Amino acid sequence: MKWSSGKNTVGEVGEDQLLSLISTHAQTHSELAIPIGDDAACLTVGDSSLVVTVDAQLEGQHFHREWLSPRQLGYRAFRVSASDVSAMGCLPKWALMSLQIPPDLNVQSFEEIMAGFQQACADASTVLVGGNLAKTNQIGLHITVIGQSTSSPLSRADASDGDYLWVTGSLGSAAAGRLLLELPKLPDNSLPLIEKWQCPPARWDLCGRLCSEGIATAAMDISDGLYTDASRMARASSLSIEIDLDHLPIHPLTPRAADYLKTTLYELVVRGGEDYEVLFAGPETLPDWAMATGVRRIGRFKPGDGLVTLKYRGSEFRSGDIPTGWDPFEGTP
Amino acid sequence: MKWSSGKNTVGEVGEDQLLSLISTHAQTHSELAIPIGDDAACLTVGDSSLVVTVDAQLEGQHFHREWLSPRQLGYRAFRVSASDVSAMGCLPKWALMSLQIPPDLNVQSFEEIMAGFQQACADASTVLVGGNLAKTNQIGLHITVIGQSTSSPLSRADASDGDYLWVTGSLGSAAAGRLLLELPKLPDNSLPLIEKWQCPPARWDLCGRLCSEGIATAAMDISDGLYTDASRMARASSLSIEIDLDHLPIHPLTPRAADYLKTTLYELVVRGGEDYEVLFAGPETLPDWAMATGVRRIGRFKPGDGLVTLKYRGSEFRSGDIPTGWDPFEGTP
Repeated sequence: MKWSSGKNTVGEVGEDQLLSLISTHAQTHSELAIPIGDDAACLTVGDSSLVVTVDAQLEGQHFHREWLSPRQLGYRAFRVSASDVSAMGCLPKWALMSLQIPPDLNVQSFEEIMAGFQQACADASTVLVGGNLAKTNQIGLHITVIGQSTSSPLSRADASDGDYLWVTGSLGSAAAGRLLLELPKLPDNSLPLIEKWQCPPARWDLCGRLCSEGIATAAMDISDGLYTDASRMARASSLSIEIDLDHLPIHPLTPRAADYLKTTLYELVVRGGEDYEVLFAGPETLPDWAMATGVRRIGRFKPGDGLVTLKYRGSEFRSGDIPTGWDPFEGTP
Repeated sequence: MKWSSGKNTVGEVGEDQLLSLISTHAQTHSELAIPIGDDAACLTVGDSSLVVTVDAQLEGQHFHREWLSPRQLGYRAFRVSASDVSAMGCLPKWALMSLQIPPDLNVQSFEEIMAGFQQACADASTVLVGGNLAKTNQIGLHITVIGQSTSSPLSRADASDGDYLWVTGSLGSAAAGRLLLELPKLPDNSLPLIEKWQCPPARWDLCGRLCSEGIATAAMDISDGLYTDASRMARASSLSIEIDLDHLPIHPLTPRAADYLKTTLYELVVRGGEDYEVLFAGPETLPDWAMATGVRRIGRFKPGDGLVTLKYRGSEFRSGDIPTGWDPFEGTP
C-alpha cells in the first residue's frame, strides 16, 4: 500500500520542519484573518471572531502516570489547549475531547480524567460540547478549544518596533517541576514547582482584557521555552527582541531546584518549556489592574530579523548562567 | 498518583456506557441548540449555526497500514469526521488535524498522509486551519471538523410519527471491503467494495440541501451499522422504526462477497459498520433531484419506545439471513 520504508524518518527531522510541511498543505484563505502557524486559527463567522486550536497530551511523550493523578491529567489537558486561546486574547468557550485509552485502564481512572477535564471547563466557563473515544495502548487526550473574542484576536506577528515585551506569571517553574518529578525522591519544597507543571495557569481573563482594551498589540504563549518562543514571535513580527535577564520573573524556589537538579537557572528559565505563560507586546507602562496580576516587562522589540538577544545588567549575555541570588520580586518594572 | 488498579477496566465496559459517563460530565447549556450525544455539537454564534465534531482514526483499532496507502488514510480520516457534519445537514468548512506518528515513520509517508488529508479538504471546499503533531508508537489522526448551516441543523431526535426512513448510498459495502482486506488473497471484483471502505462517501451537498429545503426532519450517519444506528435514532426520537429489508440498497458485489467471506448478507448490510451513509427522516416521496442521487426509502417511523423491527416481504423478520438474489436496483421507492 505504498508506505515508504526509506531511511528518512520523521524522528530524524525536526518538528519545525514537519510543521512547515504541514503549513504548505494548508491553504491560505480569505476567511482566515490570521494565517496558519499562529497559536490558534481565527475564523470569521458573521460579525464574530472565533479562534480554534487543538493540542494533545500523550502518555510517554508528554506525561507519565506517576507524574499526575488522572484528575490532574484531565485538568491539565484542558489548560494546555486553552493556553493558545488565551494567547490570542480570547476566552475559551467550547471544548471537544478526543480521548484514547488502553483497555486495561480502570473505569474509575477514566471517570477521574473526565471529571478533571470537566472541572477545568467549568472553571473557565467553557462547555464540553463533544468528544470521541478510542482504544489504544497509551492514554492520549486531543483537546480542541474554541474561543470567542469581542475584538480582533491577537496575532504573534503584530508587534511594532519600540513595543515592550511583557510576560505573565513566572518562568521556569514548570520546567523545574517536570524535572523534579523524574527524581526518585523529591526534595523539600518541590510541590509549588510541581503544581505549576501539573496545572498550567489560566490567563484568558487577563489576556482577553489586554486585547479588548487595545493594550497588547501581539501575543503568544510560551510552550517551548522563553528563548524559543520569543524567537518565533520576533520572526513572525519581522523584528528582533532584546530581553533583560535581570527582569525575568522567577519563583523563589526555582534557583534552589536548579542546584538540586544539577542544571542551571538559565536552562530552566530561558530554555525550559511548558510554562504556558503568555508573552505579549505592549506599551512601556500598563494600567494598575494589569500590574496587579504580576505581569513583568522583560524586554523590547527593535528593528531586526527575528533574533533574540539577552542582556544582563546592561551588557549582552552570551553564555553561562543567570546569576542567582537576586530577589525576583524586586526591580522592574 | 491515585491511578486505580482495580479489576473494573474500560475494556470490560461497553463503549455506550463509557460515553454515557462522558455525557454526565458534559453540561447542558443554553447555547447548545442540540444536546451532546448527537453526531455533532451545534453552536450558536451570532446569527449563525455552527456544528463541530471530532473523530479519530487509530492504527491497530481502525486501520492497519496494509489496508490503505498513507494518502488514502489522510483522505479517509477527513471523510469520517465530515460524515457527522453531513448528517447534521451542514457543509464542512474548517478542519483541524491532531496527528500522532511514530518516530520511524518515513517522511514521505508523513507527507502523503498530509496530502491526502488536504485533498479531501479541498474536495469539500474545507480549509485546514490548524493542527498539532505528536510522537507516539502508533499512527493516529484526530480530526475536528466545523460545519456551517444556513438553516437549523438536523438532529437525530426530531423524527415524527409517520415520517419515512431514507438512506443514502449502499449498505454493507464498506463492511465487506474491510473484511476482504483481512484475507490473505483478494477474490476478483473486491476493489469496488474495498474502495467503499477506504473512501467514505461525501454526503454533505445532498444532506445540506435536504436540510435547507426543509425536506428532512432528522438525520444521523451510519458508522456502527444500520441496526445499531437506526436504534439510536429511534430512541433519540422516542419512536420505533420498521425497516423493510427488501428495500435496502446493496451493491451487486456484496452478496458474492458475503459468500466468499463465509458470513451472511444480513451481517454485512444490517450489522456491518463504517458505511458513513446518512439515515434521514422525510416524507413518502422526494423531489426528483434527491431521487437522482440514489437515496432509498427503507422504512417508517411509528409510535414506540426506541425499537427497530425488520420486515421482509411484509412479515416480521426475526432471524436468519436476508435472502440473496434480488436485484438491489429494483423496487422501492
